[in-house]
Amino acid sequence: MSAKKAIVLLSGGLDSTTVLAIARQQGYACYALSFRYGQRHSAELDAACKIGQTMQVIQHRIFDLDLTLFDSSALTNCRIQVPLVESTGIPVTYVPARNTIFLSIALGWAEVIAAEAVFIGVNAVDYSGYPDCRPEFINAYQAMADLATQQGVEGHGIALKTPLIDATKADIIRLGAELGIDYAQTISCYQADASGLACGQCDSCRLRAAGFKQAGLKDPTLYRSAS
Amino acid sequence: MSAKKAIVLLSGGLDSTTVLAIARQQGYACYALSFRYGQRHSAELDAACKIGQTMQVIQHRIFDLDLTLFDSSALTNCRIQVPLVESTGIPVTYVPARNTIFLSIALGWAEVIAAEAVFIGVNAVDYSGYPDCRPEFINAYQAMADLATQQGVEGHGIALKTPLIDATKADIIRLGAELGIDYAQTISCYQADASGLACGQCDSCRLRAAGFKQAGLKDPTLYRSAS
Repeated sequence: MSAKKAIVLLSGGLDSTTVLAIARQQGYACYALSFRYGQRHSAELDAACKIGQTMQVIQHRIFDLDLTLFDSSALTNCRIQVPLVESTGIPVTYVPARNTIFLSIALGWAEVIAAEAVFIGVNAVDYSGYPDCRPEFINAYQAMADLATQQGVEGHGIALKTPLIDATKADIIRLGAELGIDYAQTISCYQADASGLACGQCDSCRLRAAGFKQAGLKDPTLYRSAS
Repeated sequence: MSAKKAIVLLSGGLDSTTVLAIARQQGYACYALSFRYGQRHSAELDAACKIGQTMQVIQHRIFDLDLTLFDSSALTNCRIQVPLVESTGIPVTYVPARNTIFLSIALGWAEVIAAEAVFIGVNAVDYSGYPDCRPEFINAYQAMADLATQQGVEGHGIALKTPLIDATKADIIRLGAELGIDYAQTISCYQADASGLACGQCDSCRLRAAGFKQAGLKDPTLYRSAS
């Protein structure tokens, strides 16, 4: 009997890498999906490729998506500066409808390969400012997806899996460490340099560093300067 | 006061062209969005561009989307033949999650330009075999979209508009004719040639021809052979 299949959205960051390890542990044959969507740096995608190889995914697709069409986000628009102080409300690093778009493409691929599940590393604790990281969004997306696909029409819709949605960064790191992840391979920084060194100052770097501290584990992140 | 904005998904076909005319009539400043997603022919996109100009859209973006990743549809895979006889169930011309993906990208753009609405020419009468053309899908998509975006969080979500969902092809053609559309500009054929001539035999051609007949209007479609 062939293994059940899952699509795993893999950015190359800490969260999505942990999700891939969880999907593998649950016995899924994993198909990794990454996006080249106009990020400032390619180090994150390079990391995703190495992680996919290390974790022996069945296939890894890099999907080109020109979200520079949407010119308002700091993650895709070099004219907007990434904030170095903690922000409130919806961060300017929010890419409009990003998870909606990523999940839609994952859904299409899942339908083609008859995958049972799509895994995504959304987290409502640290990313409460992003509308598309909340449980109510995920539930509504699932309801829509059940009606959108041939598999859904036939009564065996594709299940959205969000194993990290309620976890703190420390929880995620502890779990990943138990699953044997080498977090030095992962990149969380919003503005990593070409070789993958992290700035240590952006929101994402600060969350990550605090997570290792809370988890009581050594932070293996490679920073470009002491932070 | 500036006009309210709408994104209109414009394929270059009969339905989406009619939808654009409806959105204009309703007073929207229209932003057309088309996709280059691995269609067999580019005539449809050429038609979309001309129609966008004729109808004076504010902007027209062509979004590249490599759906050849999804290798199972006759519309993006030249190894699968387009069926020339009427099919039952979900047609093989169904592109997995296509409307889900198209709407997601429209949603992102709508958020960026603060559009109030996204118009899509789905139709549950002629395309009942497509899961993502049904009213229940659209309703679920709306519920998801209201939770996905910054505008939704702020209480003024983006409205999905499907003015053709319950219309017959004859209804659509009569309405478009009243709005002054030159349907010779539009292409519905699944396998039009490079110059835009229709085959006259595929599902889409047959539906269109029957629509003109039922509407009691002359069919202006340019066929490559008598059909």
